[in-house]
Order: sequence, then C-alpha cells, then structure tokens
Amino acid sequence: MITTSEIKFKTHGSGDIVDITGRINDAVGGSGLESGTVTVFVPGSTGGITTIEYEPGLLKDVPELMEKLVPSDRSYKHDETWHDGNGFSHLRAALIGPDITVPFVGGKPTLGTWQQVVFLEFDNRPRTRTLVLQIAGE
Amino acid sequence: MITTSEIKFKTHGSGDIVDITGRINDAVGGSGLESGTVTVFVPGSTGGITTIEYEPGLLKDVPELMEKLVPSDRSYKHDETWHDGNGFSHLRAALIGPDITVPFVGGKPTLGTWQQVVFLEFDNRPRTRTLVLQIAGE
Amino acid sequence: MITTSEIKFKTHGSGDIVDITGRINDAVGGSGLESGTVTVFVPGSTGGITTIEYEPGLLKDVPELMEKLVPSDRSYKHDETWHDGNGFSHLRAALIGPDITVPFVGGKPTLGTWQQVVFLEFDNRPRTRTLVLQIAGE
Repeated sequence: MITTSEIKFKTHGSGDIVDITGRINDAVGGSGLESGTVTVFVPGSTGGITTIEYEPGLLKDVPELMEKLVPSDRSYKHDETWHDGNGFSHLRAALIGPDITVPFVGGKPTLGTWQQVVFLEFDNRPRTRTLVLQIAGE
Repeated sequence: MITTSEIKFKTHGSGDIVDITGRINDAVGGSGLESGTVTVFVPGSTGGITTIEYEPGLLKDVPELMEKLVPSDRSYKHDETWHDGNGFSHLRAALIGPDITVPFVGGKPTLGTWQQVVFLEFDNRPRTRTLVLQIAGE
Repeated sequence: MITTSEIKFKTHGSGDIVDITGRINDAVGGSGLESGTVTVFVPGSTGGITTIEYEPGLLKDVPELMEKLVPSDRSYKHDETWHDGNGFSHLRAALIGPDITVPFVGGKPTLGTWQQVVFLEFDNRPRTRTLVLQIAGE
C-alpha cells in the first residue's frame, strides 16, 4: 500500500529550518498502515532534509556550520551561469541531500524523543516549498 | 512483506565506528525474502549512518575529518541550551544523516566487497544504541 | 512489486559527475508501476550519490568544494594501509553517502525541473561503475 501527499510551507530564505515532524506523524497516523517507511523528498536543488533536535541553539549552530563549510560571500561558478547568486545554496543542498527515509512501527515513525525531521532552506530568497511525502507499508 | 527488528550495541563515545554489516546480512538472510530494501535508522540526534571500507586507517581518518569539519573544542549555542557539551555531536549527526537504504537481491544486500555499513558515534559519552532495521521485500 | 536493474558507465576518476536521471526515468517508466520509490545505490566506497542542477558551473563548484572539505594532497592513514593514495576518495564518499531514494508518482520520479540525480566519482583513477537501481511500487 502506497500513499503520496505533499507538505507545503513558506520559508524566509537561507538559514530557515522548518520542523516537519508533526506533518510526517499525521500522515503516517492517517494512512491507517501499521508498519513501513515514510520517505520525504525535496523536489529542488537548493534545500535539504536531515534530522536535528529542534531547539533554539541548534537553529543558530546549523546555519553557522553551513556558512563555515560553504561560505555565502564567495563567488561560485554556478553564479556565472545564472547570476542569481545562490551557488552556495546549491552546494549546501548537494552536501546534505534531498531525501530521508524513516521506518514506522505501530503507526508511528521511529524517531528519537529529541529528534525532529527538518527541512533546511538554503536558497537566498523566500520560497514556497512543496515536499513530497510517500508512505509504503502494510 | 515488512519485518522490523533492532540492532543493539554499546559505544565508547565520540569517534567510535561500529560495523553493523553482519547484523544487516543476517536480518536480510533470515527474513526469507528474495529482493527488496533494508533501511537502517538511528532514533537519536547524536549518531549517523554511512558506508566505509572498515579498515584501521579509515577508523582514524573519519574521526579526524569530523573533528576538522566540526571541531569539538568550540562552544556551540546548543551547549548554552543544555550545558551537556555535545553541540558538535548534534552538528556532525545532522551532516551525516540518520538513515541508509540498501537494496538486496537474492537474499543479500548489494554492498561492495570492501564496503561496510557503519554507525558513527558522535556523542561525547558512552552510549547504548538501539538502531531500527526494517526490511521490505518479496 | 519490486524490480532491480543496473546502471553501468565509465568515469575518468575524481571530479567526474555523471547525470543518471535519464536512466532512472527510463527504468521507472519501463516498470509499468504507477507509484512507489526508486532507490539507487553505489556498491563501493569511493563514490557517492546526490542531486544537483546539472549545469557547467556546478560541475566545477562541486569538485572544488570536495577538494576544500577533504583535500586530496594530504596523506591519510588509509593510504598507509593500502598505498593506493585514495584516502580522500573514501572520506568524500562517507560524507556524501552511497544511496538515494526518490518517490515516483504517475510513473515519473518527483524530481524538480532543474534537479538531476548524479553519481560523484571520488576515486583517483578511471573506473567502470555499476550502480544498483531498485524500484518498489504498485
């Protein structure tokens, strides 16, 4: 049994971190399925998905780490192609990756207590994001 | 057909790398399924999963790389929230990611000969870890 | 319903980025399945999979980022084990990861318009690569 839905939200641009755990829990719970996997995918190349403990300190630490690993104040060759100044966004997205797969059991994702699934906005402008959420199970 | 089980082990804290390939092979073999995917997930935000060639050199190189990319001797804002000094652990885990999905065929994961699935312990203290292993196939 | 196939190609060694989106689209379309997930896996520990906008600028930016994060002109302890000089290749592969899972709907992967699935060659010599592509759906 496979069901596919969307997670829609707006972001303020680079550095925004959106907790999508509630939406994942709701989708898995609402599917009526007992066990399986939920896959969340970013259809785009300037955002990423991972898990963190969603607390105020890390909401600053994660963007600072990304800034250190892939500085935004440098010119990248991507910018020579498109002149949109978001070369750093593309590189951060390639590094973090666009997908996550979380098993669920008893109708609930097997996340840790202090672990949330987050979307990392890397683009250099506000975006309306539509993620794909797919549940496969029995 | 979906089966879910656990992989349990103890770690010594940050820098520990645990080869879980044998447990994955056993679970897939024991499922009686011919082909499908095995997903391993870390329910927590201070450990990660990836693959490496599990040999003594890389067991030192990987922690050194993590130390270079996300130094442990800095103060992170996460530490101001919790005062547990493991901000670096959370950041490393977010970077590597908590999940892996490996296809299997003929009852065997399609890993390379010198490729092992490993758990990377990033936390700053010994932990007892329980990973989720889920197999979906036919 | 599960189908497994292979994606074969040659690379020129470190820095090569191969767009495998067309092969994924063809495999999903050819499966006759409506919805599900396609998983692509690298059976080896010196290559990685992610998504990028496949354009000439990023084809230079991504290797430059990898060179900055994991320099190739350093000696790693892996090289003391095998003397093949590709310690950096292994570290880059561990960082990016060997797998990706993309949902598909209506027989088409849910990739963004300017988003391609790419294989990143990290090894220090030309390779013939065989990736595993597995489709699970209904």
